Amino acid sequence: MGADSPTSSVPTIAADHPGVAELFAVLAYGEISAFYRLADDARMAPTLQGKVALASMAAAEMSHFEILQKALTDRGVETYAAMAPFVRAFDAYHASTDPSTWLESLVKAYVGDGIAADFYREIAHSLDPAVGEIVREVLAEVGHSEFVVQEVRAAVAVSKTEKDRLMLWGRRLLGEAITQAQFVLAQREDLTDLVMNATGSLNGVAALFDNMQAKHAERMAVLGLV
Amino acid sequence: MGADSPTSSVPTIAADHPGVAELFAVLAYGEISAFYRLADDARMAPTLQGKVALASMAAAEMSHFEILQKALTDRGVETYAAMAPFVRAFDAYHASTDPSTWLESLVKAYVGDGIAADFYREIAHSLDPAVGEIVREVLAEVGHSEFVVQEVRAAVAVSKTEKDRLMLWGRRLLGEAITQAQFVLAQREDLTDLVMNATGSLNGVAALFDNMQAKHAERMAVLGLV
Repeated sequence: MGADSPTSSVPTIAADHPGVAELFAVLAYGEISAFYRLADDARMAPTLQGKVALASMAAAEMSHFEILQKALTDRGVETYAAMAPFVRAFDAYHASTDPSTWLESLVKAYVGDGIAADFYREIAHSLDPAVGEIVREVLAEVGHSEFVVQEVRAAVAVSKTEKDRLMLWGRRLLGEAITQAQFVLAQREDLTDLVMNATGSLNGVAALFDNMQAKHAERMAVLGLV
Repeated sequence: MGADSPTSSVPTIAADHPGVAELFAVLAYGEISAFYRLADDARMAPTLQGKVALASMAAAEMSHFEILQKALTDRGVETYAAMAPFVRAFDAYHASTDPSTWLESLVKAYVGDGIAADFYREIAHSLDPAVGEIVREVLAEVGHSEFVVQEVRAAVAVSKTEKDRLMLWGRRLLGEAITQAQFVLAQREDLTDLVMNATGSLNGVAALFDNMQAKHAERMAVLGLV
């Protein structure tokens, strides 16, 4: 991964950096939070196939949660206490991006997950290998997203109005995600220190958000939202 | 498993019995149905730990669903079409056993899952080994139930009223499950033929329901509901 990264591929952040537990904890609560949003949003599914697609994505989040819980426990960190500081930001993100249609749910499932994955992947290459391995494991694609891609592409191919709406929706998802990520970074010193080390500088953090924006545009294009 | 079973351990039902696909399909829809009920019921969780416990149980259902979907696909059976005949019975079961408290949710998650597992396990030993293997795999305990046991035991230890209520609730869960199982058997000839072959006779089917009742009582006892 390091080869095409803006920073060196040599890990620069020790396994015992105090931000590592915070990183695991923010990832862990993100998984739980995503589980319940996907399960909720599945209510709008017009078909059983749609319900199953979202349920499978939700289930994958929980298996990732379990990996993180184990990683925290192995470090002697109590998962629930460690997650507590991050509840507000995720709840705020989900409350401000509550889908009102099935297509909005699908775009959120696909794009929202991707935005988060980009953020973590950008810093993973600077982590101690064992830590980076866990981060990459819980970000692995779970292979239920083809359904989303097909449904969204089909819908926007026949409706310019739908396409315009979903393009705005995607932009809003990115904006809210970055707002909440910045909120978290402003509050958690150890995590911020980790991100700063991973990206090299404050400019590096800005570059990270720029990269996320570029990747977001690519994902929107996959959905036919370009 | 066959050694202590009422019938012989020699498989008597060929892998190509037409009831096998129906068996996989009824199991598959049961998993989806349980997923959404658990995710829904988790809303009542008073703690994040409780939410996670139910989410983990829900996630396990989906990994079982995926095994069954593969088994159906391998047989050239389209999963969604195959599940369609079973939607009504599961939806009726869940509608008639909608928990009104968190403790009712927990008892349902634990006991309801167990009732279904007993039914399938009773017939698994008569199935072709490859088929029986799949059935046992999707019935495997997933290890998230200790949480349920502890919560329920603690609650009923301090409240006789709660205990009485939950004992009635458990009885209702069993009654509704058997009602719906009989409804399904009355409608699906191939599946009924499979169950009859597995249990040996109509008396065998009656014995199966008796065994389920005995196992149910054991599970209620584990929860302190005795």
